[in-house]
Amino acid sequence: MPQPKLLETFPNPYPKRDYEIFMTCPEFTSLCPLGGIETDAAELALLTGGAPDFATINITYVPDRVCVELKSLKLYLWSFRNDGIFYERVVNTIFDDLVKALKPRKMTIVGDFNIRGGIKSVITVEQHGPRNKKR
Amino acid sequence: MPQPKLLETFPNPYPKRDYEIFMTCPEFTSLCPLGGIETDAAELALLTGGAPDFATINITYVPDRVCVELKSLKLYLWSFRNDGIFYERVVNTIFDDLVKALKPRKMTIVGDFNIRGGIKSVITVEQHGPRNKKR
Amino acid sequence: MPQPKLLETFPNPYPKRDYEIFMTCPEFTSLCPLGGIETDAAELALLTGGAPDFATINITYVPDRVCVELKSLKLYLWSFRNDGIFYERVVNTIFDDLVKALKPRKMTIVGDFNIRGGIKSVITVEQHGPRNKKR
Amino acid sequence: MPQPKLLETFPNPYPKRDYEIFMTCPEFTSLCPLGGIETDAAELALLTGGAPDFATINITYVPDRVCVELKSLKLYLWSFRNDGIFYERVVNTIFDDLVKALKPRKMTIVGDFNIRGGIKSVITVEQHGPRNKKR
Amino acid sequence: MPQPKLLETFPNPYPKRDYEIFMTCPEFTSLCPLGGIETDAAELALLTGGAPDFATINITYVPDRVCVELKSLKLYLWSFRNDGIFYERVVNTIFDDLVKALKPRKMTIVGDFNIRGGIKSVITVEQHGPRNKKR
Amino acid sequence: MPQPKLLETFPNPYPKRDYEIFMTCPEFTSLCPLGGIETDAAELALLTGGAPDFATINITYVPDRVCVELKSLKLYLWSFRNDGIFYERVVNTIFDDLVKALKPRKMTIVGDFNIRGGIKSVITVEQHGPRNKKR
Amino acid sequence: MPQPKLLETFPNPYPKRDYEIFMTCPEFTSLCPLGGIETDAAELALLTGGAPDFATINITYVPDRVCVELKSLKLYLWSFRNDGIFYERVVNTIFDDLVKALKPRKMTIVGDFNIRGGIKSVITVEQHGPRNKKR
Amino acid sequence: MPQPKLLETFPNPYPKRDYEIFMTCPEFTSLCPLGGIETDAAELALLTGGAPDFATINITYVPDRVCVELKSLKLYLWSFRNDGIFYERVVNTIFDDLVKALKPRKMTIVGDFNIRGGIKSVITVEQHGPRNKKR
Amino acid sequence: MPQPKLLETFPNPYPKRDYEIFMTCPEFTSLCPLGGIETDAAELALLTGGAPDFATINITYVPDRVCVELKSLKLYLWSFRNDGIFYERVVNTIFDDLVKALKPRKMTIVGDFNIRGGIKSVITVEQHGPRNKKR
Amino acid sequence: MPQPKLLETFPNPYPKRDYEIFMTCPEFTSLCPLGGIETDAAELALLTGGAPDFATINITYVPDRVCVELKSLKLYLWSFRNDGIFYERVVNTIFDDLVKALKPRKMTIVGDFNIRGGIKSVITVEQHGPRNKKR
Repeated sequence: MPQPKLLETFPNPYPKRDYEIFMTCPEFTSLCPLGGIETDAAELALLTGGAPDFATINITYVPDRVCVELKSLKLYLWSFRNDGIFYERVVNTIFDDLVKALKPRKMTIVGDFNIRGGIKSVITVEQHGPRNKKR
Repeated sequence: MPQPKLLETFPNPYPKRDYEIFMTCPEFTSLCPLGGIETDAAELALLTGGAPDFATINITYVPDRVCVELKSLKLYLWSFRNDGIFYERVVNTIFDDLVKALKPRKMTIVGDFNIRGGIKSVITVEQHGPRNKKR
Repeated sequence: MPQPKLLETFPNPYPKRDYEIFMTCPEFTSLCPLGGIETDAAELALLTGGAPDFATINITYVPDRVCVELKSLKLYLWSFRNDGIFYERVVNTIFDDLVKALKPRKMTIVGDFNIRGGIKSVITVEQHGPRNKKR
Repeated sequence: MPQPKLLETFPNPYPKRDYEIFMTCPEFTSLCPLGGIETDAAELALLTGGAPDFATINITYVPDRVCVELKSLKLYLWSFRNDGIFYERVVNTIFDDLVKALKPRKMTIVGDFNIRGGIKSVITVEQHGPRNKKR
Repeated sequence: MPQPKLLETFPNPYPKRDYEIFMTCPEFTSLCPLGGIETDAAELALLTGGAPDFATINITYVPDRVCVELKSLKLYLWSFRNDGIFYERVVNTIFDDLVKALKPRKMTIVGDFNIRGGIKSVITVEQHGPRNKKR
Repeated sequence: MPQPKLLETFPNPYPKRDYEIFMTCPEFTSLCPLGGIETDAAELALLTGGAPDFATINITYVPDRVCVELKSLKLYLWSFRNDGIFYERVVNTIFDDLVKALKPRKMTIVGDFNIRGGIKSVITVEQHGPRNKKR
Repeated sequence: MPQPKLLETFPNPYPKRDYEIFMTCPEFTSLCPLGGIETDAAELALLTGGAPDFATINITYVPDRVCVELKSLKLYLWSFRNDGIFYERVVNTIFDDLVKALKPRKMTIVGDFNIRGGIKSVITVEQHGPRNKKR
Repeated sequence: MPQPKLLETFPNPYPKRDYEIFMTCPEFTSLCPLGGIETDAAELALLTGGAPDFATINITYVPDRVCVELKSLKLYLWSFRNDGIFYERVVNTIFDDLVKALKPRKMTIVGDFNIRGGIKSVITVEQHGPRNKKR
Repeated sequence: MPQPKLLETFPNPYPKRDYEIFMTCPEFTSLCPLGGIETDAAELALLTGGAPDFATINITYVPDRVCVELKSLKLYLWSFRNDGIFYERVVNTIFDDLVKALKPRKMTIVGDFNIRGGIKSVITVEQHGPRNKKR
Repeated sequence: MPQPKLLETFPNPYPKRDYEIFMTCPEFTSLCPLGGIETDAAELALLTGGAPDFATINITYVPDRVCVELKSLKLYLWSFRNDGIFYERVVNTIFDDLVKALKPRKMTIVGDFNIRGGIKSVITVEQHGPRNKKR
């Protein structure tokens, strides 16, 4: 289960300036929920709980008071590994957890999932923080 | 014949937020209508009904109340396989069927067809849903 | 000599909607006019009438009442094959002939010519039809 | 059903010389046999007879007395379109049909199939004709 | 734990002919054994048992009496997902399990692991079956 | 019509040494013979004599007494421009004409033709001159 | 320790015109601060003071009165080599030092750091000088 | 020394229409001024007058009354070959000379110089002609 | 100074089988020896001891009794960071140190150094261990 | 004029071992001899002595007693800059000069020249030194 409590932060060393941090994590993996698109999942479910999904997660944000600590982000993303979860929920959950932890001035999360059944999916959630809301 | 009734939807889990879903389907195939550009089609028509066309279909949308179920989309795209249909109609039909099924806040369909007679064609249909119409 | 009369059209099946058609033709060839940049042309001219030029022609348009028929476009582009004609005239002629035949809502022609004398040339002509003129 | 009778040949214009002809056909499609790996196939089977497979077929041969006529090869490859057939059989069947029709001095067939269930398959059949057998 | 019993086979439809089957599986993942190179593993170990490793597994073989069933291969590779195992053992285990199940005429396994600590590792195990041993 | 008399040579400045000259000519064009694969050719034939083919011609040779003069090679390749000629004949003709003009120690000609009817063709003719024949 | 005093400038030869200078430096290296993300750093610290980081630094600016002298920039970037410093500080320090030395009309610094722990980071600092501030 | 008098023009055949001409010249070379960054230049200077620089020059313009003649442009760019000149001056000089010769409606010059001392430089000068000045 | 004593090994888990381990380390850096090719080095030498060099080090070996421990290899390669050493010595030293530590059946070291003064260098040292010597 | 006396060497630090040094020099330029293929050369000749040629020179050798000093190699290659010389002579001259200066165990020189008149040329000279001659 995703564990937002793993996310740690450190004080933004340049809080007076808007600058952008982009992180790309090509090694994200979770499981497909039971009863999902790939019926193979039913069989594997006997072993692990659902068929594996793979994605690259791209995170772009403008920090306000805090930045996310890189190692804690890695552990947080690992915590999806044995979770049965839909694409839309993966990306929106990471977005919600990071917005809550960082309260950034601006944030975008892109989940770029590997091809399944001949179709590739990319989910993008983008929202501005309080300061940029009026733009 | 394209079968829009194959399209199934599930409730958008984050309806309060605008976010984008992009799906690329590199394995689309249909047939060229009889009497079309490639005269070879006439000969093959004796066997299958028209010469094959190949395309990548790219779908981008911002969901409103529902999202398209991935497996049903795959079956829907397969339903063009033995259909004799022009490029323009392929892309506009997919657009119309998905707009009708999803009533999305925004949608773009791109059909990127393989080279024929030394010419490559890409058809793009883009339209905004009710909420974004004023932009 | 370019033969615009070769261009055939068919009624736009979705005239109520703005959508874009892009066609790329990587196999365009014409001849360099006599007395042009490459003096070799003079010698070959004894055989064929000028040195060969090669280009990719990209056509993008938003159809209004008619679309260009793909096979007739191919024959039209072939009709430049043994013509001695400058780059600028190639691209502007294709633009003029297609605008006249299609009366599109919007059209762009790009001629991307192979390197000559260590220099590569790309010519772009873009103009909007009556409806989009005010943008 | 694959139709080897569609294959036509023409006399090799240079039979005294060993030379190689390579043809790549990126638009091959067939169907997955019922009961195959992708259980989705069962559902589509109600519509068309099996889930679609896509491949690039590469053919390399040294002609002896005859060469394969290009257009007839295209029609022959199209004849697999609505056939339920395993990867191994696709490649070995093309090999057998072409060897029978061409009696080439040397032939290789490679079928490079699109990813299915996260795994990509490439099947290669290679055999030498009578003259080269001893190498 | 790797489960070789998941591997299923089907009779080689062309046993009289040597032909090659290549399969590439870009979605392999396992865990780093505890006490391994990445000390972060210790922390995650509290959650899942070790830090994740990612690899592409390439399998090339010449079948003898049987071929590996594609879906069962996928399930077999999934069975490493929550296993703490070194790179060398991953590749040699897959080699041993497939040789035992398929008794192929020839087999090569390549494990191409993602960069760790700034270093990328690729392990290759190759061996010939009884028939090819003398080459 | 191909004009081998256009080929000019100059004395090899280093005849005591085996060295290799490779030339690639990406701008080769000829016409498809009437009655060929593309039935469109019949229509264009009214205008120019056959449908255009495009290819890259690669020439590799080890010179003996003479080298081919680069500009004369260009004029020679241009002389195919309005010729109706099959792929096999293009490559074998260039091979024969160059072998006759250069008597090289070793020569290979590769004609890499653009996709036609969804199929790409590459023809390779390779032969060794007197000195290398025994290798 | 970064040594801004190494930066030398020369008078902008075209001060009446806005033009852009982009410089990319793919060979930046510094050290990870002790106690940072990679615990290996502790061990290496016995030798050199922290684990190495690698980055490409991209600098884009519109010069006002002075331009940065290329060789002095190289020496300045080298001065980070044995410094234990976080990503955010690297990029903001380069930005501050160059703004102070050049007082440019516009400046952007991008630090594109190599993957660490499966995550790649890119930091971007962009700000306009006095003249462009109102844009 | 750059010789702007080498630049020749011909009347724009379509002066009533705004269209864009892009030319890329990947074979630009000049010399580094004596006393420049690379101290090797001092040694070579005994031979030729400075160390060589290499660049790709990209020219984009919207012609007004005249276009630049391609061959004369080539000769003009060659005239920098043995000139000791800084990057900034190369790009601004080409800009000034072409603006003076062509009086274009719009012009951009980009000089993309090869890596020196581990740093790559790209200089961009862009300015609009009288008609577009107010944008 | 390179510290071979940092290299640690673990027993080869499959000593009865020849298999290959390839490791690529794109983050190698050392310093140019004083008085070397880049005279800038003299200036930086005041700061750090020589100008930086960058390389990718590729290691391929067939293990005999032991394999190199990945983390210790990383620390060993880091130990060149502040060493003034020529390219040839870097690659031969790594070769000697690894052969001494691993006594492999076969080993190849490739050092692929970044461009310096417009020239890129790649050094390859390859040697077989006792068992393979007779091949 | 090429100046072989610029080539300097240093003692091979590992003379007991065969190892390979590869150097690629993408910035080679010389002039076309007067009366050569490009008739433009005649015009420029008034200015500089012939039209410019550009090439990448690849050098691979196994050193015996000495290695070539990198900076002296750069100066040697620069000495062709204002020389009117044919492709074949460029490559064979570099080969002869380096063999004479280095007496290597093995050497290959490849000159990869930029496209001229639509044709690209690559010249390869390869020869073994005394020790390897028998291979």
